[in-house]
Amino acid sequence: MTKKILVISTGGTIVSQIGEGGLAPTGGAGGIVDVLRGRFPEHDISLDELMSLDSSNVGPRHWRDIARAVWRALPNHDGVIITHGTDTMAYTASALAFMLRGLRKGVVLTGSQIPSFDPLSDAASNLCVAASALLCGITGVTIAFGRKVINGARAVKVSSTDMDAFDSPNAPPIASVTASGVKVTDWAMPKLARCGVLTVLEDELCGDVFLLKLTPGTKLEMLAALPDMGYRGVVIEAFGAGGAPDAGCCMKRGLYALAGAHIPVVVRSQCLTGGVDLSMYETGRTMREMGAISARDMTSEAAVTKLMWALGRTSDVSEIRKIFETNLAGEISI
Amino acid sequence: MTKKILVISTGGTIVSQIGEGGLAPTGGAGGIVDVLRGRFPEHDISLDELMSLDSSNVGPRHWRDIARAVWRALPNHDGVIITHGTDTMAYTASALAFMLRGLRKGVVLTGSQIPSFDPLSDAASNLCVAASALLCGITGVTIAFGRKVINGARAVKVSSTDMDAFDSPNAPPIASVTASGVKVTDWAMPKLARCGVLTVLEDELCGDVFLLKLTPGTKLEMLAALPDMGYRGVVIEAFGAGGAPDAGCCMKRGLYALAGAHIPVVVRSQCLTGGVDLSMYETGRTMREMGAISARDMTSEAAVTKLMWALGRTSDVSEIRKIFETNLAGEISI
Repeated sequence: MTKKILVISTGGTIVSQIGEGGLAPTGGAGGIVDVLRGRFPEHDISLDELMSLDSSNVGPRHWRDIARAVWRALPNHDGVIITHGTDTMAYTASALAFMLRGLRKGVVLTGSQIPSFDPLSDAASNLCVAASALLCGITGVTIAFGRKVINGARAVKVSSTDMDAFDSPNAPPIASVTASGVKVTDWAMPKLARCGVLTVLEDELCGDVFLLKLTPGTKLEMLAALPDMGYRGVVIEAFGAGGAPDAGCCMKRGLYALAGAHIPVVVRSQCLTGGVDLSMYETGRTMREMGAISARDMTSEAAVTKLMWALGRTSDVSEIRKIFETNLAGEISI
Repeated sequence: MTKKILVISTGGTIVSQIGEGGLAPTGGAGGIVDVLRGRFPEHDISLDELMSLDSSNVGPRHWRDIARAVWRALPNHDGVIITHGTDTMAYTASALAFMLRGLRKGVVLTGSQIPSFDPLSDAASNLCVAASALLCGITGVTIAFGRKVINGARAVKVSSTDMDAFDSPNAPPIASVTASGVKVTDWAMPKLARCGVLTVLEDELCGDVFLLKLTPGTKLEMLAALPDMGYRGVVIEAFGAGGAPDAGCCMKRGLYALAGAHIPVVVRSQCLTGGVDLSMYETGRTMREMGAISARDMTSEAAVTKLMWALGRTSDVSEIRKIFETNLAGEISI
């Protein structure tokens, strides 16, 4: 049966050309659709050239534009492919996973590490995996890249150079390409989608979230300065299972100041795998007692975008805590 | 032949006990030496209980104390084992690698993910790998953990929960434990040590380095505020191969402000593997033109501690750029 697939192009390496200033997304996206029409001639594939950005310049405003373009397209299409630069693809995928949670159709992001014009490019391969993922019924927001499909809300760009650039550190891939085609190994996402039906687009975001990755020597006094810089939410990338320095009580004073300004603080681990457990060590317990919210085994990409999304719905810290305790898009292990 | 090994204990999970506030390093380090003396009875193993800290509280001041303790011990010992909490072990190892570069004896850090009192603890295993690494002639600053030995200047804590918690993403391990013992696979570090002999301890550090991990939505105006917060160096964790937003030119203004205050800015990738190449994309080139120094394939742990070490020697940005272009402890691929 013929399926209708929309490709939304947003820029990135996949449409980049060499210019005077270096690689930039100056090429048209027509080539992307040509590849897909050539490989999947039985399906109806159309193109929406929404934007043409290096993904380093993609942020909350663009995520809303992309979510709205998907929302408009869904009633008339069986699935959507979003081509995107790799640099912030994991952030965009996480944000879309919250804005479009409970989706019963597939929205799959892809792109390439090498521009399409290069004979070594991974563009055609990634596009074909993305289309195959849609055609075999994978729903929700995912990333198809380097011969596998992962949950968008679990995605991290783990390598700046490898073709297998993305991973979902605390969750198995949803599907992999095998000699017999796309093999789906995890049907948890469609199950999650069946729990809640998306009836309205929840695209309100508050982009004023700061990520503080701790290093030994970080002056924690700066936490208290964040409200004046216009931030309304903070994600702390702590050490290991949730460690943070308590020297001089600067951390406590910083967290008190943020609590006084009704600014939610989410704590996540700076380790790629594992997660935080704020009940385990004395340093973590201190943060929990000061009101910090545990991101458990979420990625930083998911923690930042979930906080932006939560702040778009409410500024009540206890409401935000409840949102973080709820698995919305497969982003946390229950 | 009997070797003299000193164990310097600094605290961490390996000596932690359960207290009212959670796990904390309240146990004595005698058990550590008992384990080693039991397994290596032919060698002379002694203990220096230097500090007893959760490693989340270990910073530049402690790194100097540890480096000085190692320096004092070296003339009378064949090697040193430093037991340390896992949370910031990669930072301490990186800092020591620069302070003790060119070392012809071995200094190996280790610890455990599970406290020694627990029957499942990895403490005894890790201690034995550390001692074996010294006895088979691995020199320089390394981490022995989870059945492998890695370069201290390349180390990252990649998992908050796994026993195999550390990795050296852009460099192969130096040695692994096989059925026939410790198998050394990379002799690059001893070769590097032969290039330069350590005659004085270079332990000056400036701890005033800020790490900014970019996320979409980061208000780059804050770069200009860092000098007033007392920072003298900045490491930016950029997207992918060195991408950063240039929206509204905030990045340019921030970098100009830092350049005006003679504050070096080092750019590193937030991806675990790969590295930055500021010549590739337009966004990266912009940062390079504004004077940013490329960390190439260094870890964040190495970039932050190398900048602290460089600032301890000079405040001249062009001198610091030269230091970053030099491979001091195997921290960059040449």
